[in-house]
Amino acid sequence: MKASAPGKVILFGEHAVVYGRHAVVTAINLRCYAEALKSSTFRIESPIATTSLDFEKHPYVSYAIKRFMEVKPIDGVKIKIESEIPIASGLGSSAAVTVAVLKALDAEFDAGLSDEELFELARKVELDVQGRGSGTDPFVSTYGGAWLIPERKPLDLGEFRMLIVNSGEESITSEMVAKVARLRDELGDVVERIFDVIDTISLKAFAGEGEISRLMAVNQCMLKAIGVSTKRIDEIVEELEGLGIAAKITGAGGGGSVVGVGSDEALQRAAKLFSGIIVEPEREGARVED
Amino acid sequence: MKASAPGKVILFGEHAVVYGRHAVVTAINLRCYAEALKSSTFRIESPIATTSLDFEKHPYVSYAIKRFMEVKPIDGVKIKIESEIPIASGLGSSAAVTVAVLKALDAEFDAGLSDEELFELARKVELDVQGRGSGTDPFVSTYGGAWLIPERKPLDLGEFRMLIVNSGEESITSEMVAKVARLRDELGDVVERIFDVIDTISLKAFAGEGEISRLMAVNQCMLKAIGVSTKRIDEIVEELEGLGIAAKITGAGGGGSVVGVGSDEALQRAAKLFSGIIVEPEREGARVED
Repeated sequence: MKASAPGKVILFGEHAVVYGRHAVVTAINLRCYAEALKSSTFRIESPIATTSLDFEKHPYVSYAIKRFMEVKPIDGVKIKIESEIPIASGLGSSAAVTVAVLKALDAEFDAGLSDEELFELARKVELDVQGRGSGTDPFVSTYGGAWLIPERKPLDLGEFRMLIVNSGEESITSEMVAKVARLRDELGDVVERIFDVIDTISLKAFAGEGEISRLMAVNQCMLKAIGVSTKRIDEIVEELEGLGIAAKITGAGGGGSVVGVGSDEALQRAAKLFSGIIVEPEREGARVED
Repeated sequence: MKASAPGKVILFGEHAVVYGRHAVVTAINLRCYAEALKSSTFRIESPIATTSLDFEKHPYVSYAIKRFMEVKPIDGVKIKIESEIPIASGLGSSAAVTVAVLKALDAEFDAGLSDEELFELARKVELDVQGRGSGTDPFVSTYGGAWLIPERKPLDLGEFRMLIVNSGEESITSEMVAKVARLRDELGDVVERIFDVIDTISLKAFAGEGEISRLMAVNQCMLKAIGVSTKRIDEIVEELEGLGIAAKITGAGGGGSVVGVGSDEALQRAAKLFSGIIVEPEREGARVED
């Protein structure tokens, strides 16, 4: 059986959420697809490699199979992965592949997992691989939709499109989190008050108040203030602004992706210029395909 | 008699101070010089024009003479102005010319004004010309030194140099204050929390905590967030950053001046590249020149 799960973007609140503030995150209409076929051996086929259970090359898929087997023992399975979500770009590709594989296994082996059980397994896989994690990505990938974090209150973003541009620089979450922690040690209250600004932005977006574009531009200034923007990202954000698009880092920063909003025309022009992808909020979470 | 008074830079807190938050301002070693000579007529000579009392062409000097005459009636005076302070650049040239003229009048006509009386007259002139004003510029120009505003607590900034770069764009304070007010109407709490960040920066600088350069960079992000930076200022700030200088708008923004701090070598290099001026905090306020 084939299943899929969506990626996500953080619209507001990255980093601040680490310090107890609110964030807004939404599933996007880029999906990871996983096909599971009963087999007497284990085989994982993906654009990265073809392996057996392999906790190095396919950590998320392998741990997903391992965690699934705690619920329903199996002798083997053939997994095939195809993904629309760029890897390591802050778009939740790891959680999406995990959730898609679990959903496919659930369907193929009739395990009857509820969404909650699916999420809990995906959450465990996140911890298996990363050692830590907020659980937000597996949550959003499982349930779809947009959410206020950490309460996980759903929100309706309505219809809009977002441009995703890759900075071409690698974003290493742990390094950026450590960098912000150092700045907080140095500047204390100043950084806490910046988190408060970000918190207010997330709550305002959740309440449907204030233009998303304006809130994004302000949030980006806050991310720059805490040192997680880069010269390249500043350039991208400024050039997008010149095209009528408000943009910000999405994810940990120091590289990675930028998310922007603006008119359809502006987004399409910018998508060409920056080899970007246009995405939309996605209501549907993990699902079985046909 | 000849007298002089210093200009100023706002190191931290512009705009936030309008909403009750703290700012840090310092007198700088650029002065406006005014010579007053008893005469039977009124004559004002400056780089702008040579006039009689003229509330259009020489509003600050003319109102300064008018206010002085309320304290000590005179039949006429010849005033000659020379200034090191660039005009309309957010460096307090208006207050400096006002205070310098009042101090020169005081000396020439033996009015025996105390600093407090001098400041009060300069404060009235600010209101005469601008209709409104916080009194900060006349205060700093009268007393010299660095101050936490609005309490007017003195602080010792120690020795350091600042680079002043003119953006080449005009800064119109009233327009920028109105722009921030509109954003505050739109985003409410978000803008209030940004003011809180700026407030914390000013208090931290006052307490001598945190590197000035770091605080400046963060303050600039906040000013950008409230919409008072410009593309040109962003460029200047970024290029200065590349030269090892942390910089921010000083004054209302939308143009005007940028103030930056860094190593002497970096400042000198940047001063050449940007036709900037290097200034220092100035302890001495209004004074009679031998």
